[in-house]
Order: sequence, then structure tokens, then C-alpha cells
Amino acid sequence: MTGTPDTALIAGTGLLPALLAKARPDLLICELEGFPSAVPGATPERFRVERLVPFLDGLVARGIETVVFAGAMQRPKLEPEFFDPQTASLVPRLLGAMQAGDDETLRAVIELFEEWGLRVVGAHEIASDLVPEAGILCGDVTEADRRDQARAAEIVAALGSVDVGQGAVVAQGLCLAVESLPGTDAMLAFAADHQGLRPDPKGAGGVFYKAPKPGQDRRIDLPAIGPQTVANAAKAGLSGIAWEAGGVMLLDREATVAAAQEAGLFLWACAP
Amino acid sequence: MTGTPDTALIAGTGLLPALLAKARPDLLICELEGFPSAVPGATPERFRVERLVPFLDGLVARGIETVVFAGAMQRPKLEPEFFDPQTASLVPRLLGAMQAGDDETLRAVIELFEEWGLRVVGAHEIASDLVPEAGILCGDVTEADRRDQARAAEIVAALGSVDVGQGAVVAQGLCLAVESLPGTDAMLAFAADHQGLRPDPKGAGGVFYKAPKPGQDRRIDLPAIGPQTVANAAKAGLSGIAWEAGGVMLLDREATVAAAQEAGLFLWACAP
Repeated sequence: MTGTPDTALIAGTGLLPALLAKARPDLLICELEGFPSAVPGATPERFRVERLVPFLDGLVARGIETVVFAGAMQRPKLEPEFFDPQTASLVPRLLGAMQAGDDETLRAVIELFEEWGLRVVGAHEIASDLVPEAGILCGDVTEADRRDQARAAEIVAALGSVDVGQGAVVAQGLCLAVESLPGTDAMLAFAADHQGLRPDPKGAGGVFYKAPKPGQDRRIDLPAIGPQTVANAAKAGLSGIAWEAGGVMLLDREATVAAAQEAGLFLWACAP
Repeated sequence: MTGTPDTALIAGTGLLPALLAKARPDLLICELEGFPSAVPGATPERFRVERLVPFLDGLVARGIETVVFAGAMQRPKLEPEFFDPQTASLVPRLLGAMQAGDDETLRAVIELFEEWGLRVVGAHEIASDLVPEAGILCGDVTEADRRDQARAAEIVAALGSVDVGQGAVVAQGLCLAVESLPGTDAMLAFAADHQGLRPDPKGAGGVFYKAPKPGQDRRIDLPAIGPQTVANAAKAGLSGIAWEAGGVMLLDREATVAAAQEAGLFLWACAP
């Protein structure tokens, strides 16, 4: 890699942007104003949604060809006075997509980048070891865990069909928590608060299951699991974490597996 | 009404059992041991799931013909040593239903009562003013509220198809919370904790929508809304509460409407 970068990383919060930047030091790092991405040593290019068109023009002008989205992004509050006229003309389109849910918003964003001639790829396409193949990475999965996983997968699929959330917690056949806008950590905290509802306190602890939504564009917003997920699942008294293999990124695999082993949790990438 | 009661109220927690007992003072009140029903002035007949068969035999022996379930019931922890042989023989059937979700559990319970010759009816069948017809009971419903209600109804229907929850909170098109085992109050507390995620703090506050599950047996576990629901929705900064007309009970209508008016919330029974 020499000279000017040809790939931009649109970095949100969480571990993933820093891991990608470490794996690929040639990325141009960009972040949404107000949502710092915390990539060590980087001086990110900041942009605002209200000035998206000038930002896209700038990326093209400096030779960027490929764009990767990584990390969590909250929907920013839009300030009418910051819009430039061209971006303002996109507002009806963007607002319509935002009303229709996360998937539509993401699709609209990808479409816009593509209209500027930029190729949008998934984080796993530039750092392939982030997405584990099917298998049990650590711990023991019991029959009760398998039943809880199957039930959670069914719930997540139903939620995905209406474009809500990507995860659920099931213990002893009962759904303790469902993911929505506040995200995985908030859902696991909720499950921790209500873990006493398990009928048999000595029975199966339960499973947190995560999967991309059906039909989700995997180039953006692929769900991710990391050491913090393990810590939160342990606080909720769960037996382990399962996910759809190929559809979920494992952030910092070594640290995540070590944390799960330490906490006695299984990590299981389930064949879809 | 003279002499011995012919209708038994299987009373859970919450307001409903007391309201029914007030409307129908001739009921035989029964409650699950460990889950006091708080019906004023009543000395409930207590029973354990582990001794369900002797309990059912007892109801029949004293001339009970009709049974109403009302109020919230948690799944009790079962103690193997308390089972009588006949109830023990039902365990595989009950456990199978419990694993399959709330609806199946309730269906199995109704079936058992019916096998003893008891007629199981819904609470609204013995106190019909509990279930309001379609209409706006108080407050103003905006176009944004109507969109949030429609989105929430779509989410609740999807959840119902996998036998999870009966409610969701949607604000400005975004799903802030989804109901699961911990119930409505826990979900509204979660929505209150995360109300800051609404993109426009001055925009629509959001709607809590509640509906029975598709195919739910309405003789048991019909969802209910009361003054406490209004208080919790107000804490979450919501604009109002909506529900499927005919499918949700309004506990203590006068107090609930008064609380909503005081808090500036709408109450809306939506035509299905």
C-alpha cells in the first residue's frame, strides 16, 4: 500500500473500527460528528448527515473507491440550519427510509454512496477472520441450551421480518428479553434484571442468540459480538452465546473466547 | 344468587381479580400458593400446581361449573416432593406445553379444567364493561401517533406469531421496546430508560400498543391496561396508549381515563 488511500472506513462506536484500522492501516477513517469512533492514533475526517453530499463529493475527489461501514451508529438529531441545498433535497428520501425501519435506512444510505460511484463492502470482506465458521468455539452446549437456541432463533427471525432487532434471550424455553433500538447491551442488562423469572434457578441459564435480519444487506450493520457481550451475558446468568455462523462478527476473537472460558460460557456459531 | 357458588375465580395478582369479585360477589376465589391475589375481604382457596388434580376434584365436588381466570400469574417453581400421583402423571404433558410457550401452557391448563367438566369463560364474559369498544377514549391522536401505532401493531403481530409478548413501544417510527416474559411494566420502564434515543426530542412521544396474540384463547390471559400502565407510559414520555379493541381489558375505566387525562396521554381502542 502506497500513497493515498482508496478505501474509506465510516467508523461508528465500539471495537470494530479500531480492529479494522489495525488490520488495514491504509484506510481513510471518517466518523459522524458527535459520535467519536475512538480509533487509536487516527485523526478522523468528520462529517454531518446534513452535509452528506459535500462529504461524498470530497471522498470521490480524493480518490476513494471503496467504502466500509463499521461500528454502531446512533441516528443523529438533524439540525435544519446545517443542510446544504443538495443534501436538503435528499431529505424526503432519507426520512421516508428512516420511518420504514433500520434496514430501509441502511439500504438508502448504501444506495446513496453507490450513486456517487463508491463500492460499499462489508467489514468481513476486508478482514475475513472476523466472521467465524460454524462450530462451538468454547464451552459445552447441553440439550436444554440447544432448545433455547432454537426458540431464540425462531423469535429473532420473526422480529427480523418486521425489521426490529437482531437478538433475543431465551432461558428454559421462555423469552426473557428481545432486542430493539437500545441495542444488545441494553437488552442483556434487562435480562440480568429479570433473571429471577427462570422457573428453575438451578436449571439451564439460557442463551443469547444473535443473527442478521432475513434479507439484511450484509455490507453494513452486520451484528457483532465481543468481550463486552460476554461480560454482559455472564451478568445475566446465561449459559452461553450463540449466533448464525457467517452472519455475525466476532470482535477480538482471542479476548472474547478467553472471557467466555473465564466466565464458563459457551460460544457457538450455529450452522444456518 | 343463593347458597353455594357455581363459578370459581382463579385469581392472579393485579387489579382485575378484585374488580371481578366486586362485580360478582358470588364467586369462589382461588389462588395459586405463593401468589396472593389481594381480593379485599376474601379468604381464597389456595392450591398448588403439584396438587392440581385434587384441587380440580374439590371444585367439582363442591358444585363449581364455571371457571374464570383473571390477573397475572407467574410460573411457579415446581417442588417434586409435593406432587400427588395423579398430578405427577400430568407432568410430561404440562412441561411439554410450558416449553412451547405461554399460549400452549394456557391451552393445556384450559383443556385440563374442561376434562373435569368445568366451563372456562373469559373475565369479560362475566363483567362485559371491562372491554371497551373501538374509539378514542381521551386525548388527541396525531398523524405521527397513527403511524407509530401501525408500526407497533405490525411488530406485536410478528411477535405474537412466535408466541412472545403482547406489546411494543414505537416512537417516531423506531421500536424502543418489545414486551417479553417480564411483562408490560418492565417493558415500559425499559422504554423510559431509553427515551433519549428518539431522534427528535420535541417530536412525537411514541405509542405503547397492546394486542392479544393471533389465535390467543381469549378466555384466559387477555391483556389488560390500568392506571399503573398510564403512569408507566407517562414516565416513558409517550404520547398515548393504543390497543386492539375487543382484545384488551381496561381495568377500572374511570380511574384509568382520569389518569390519562391528567398526564396528557391519549387512550385509543383501535378497530382491529
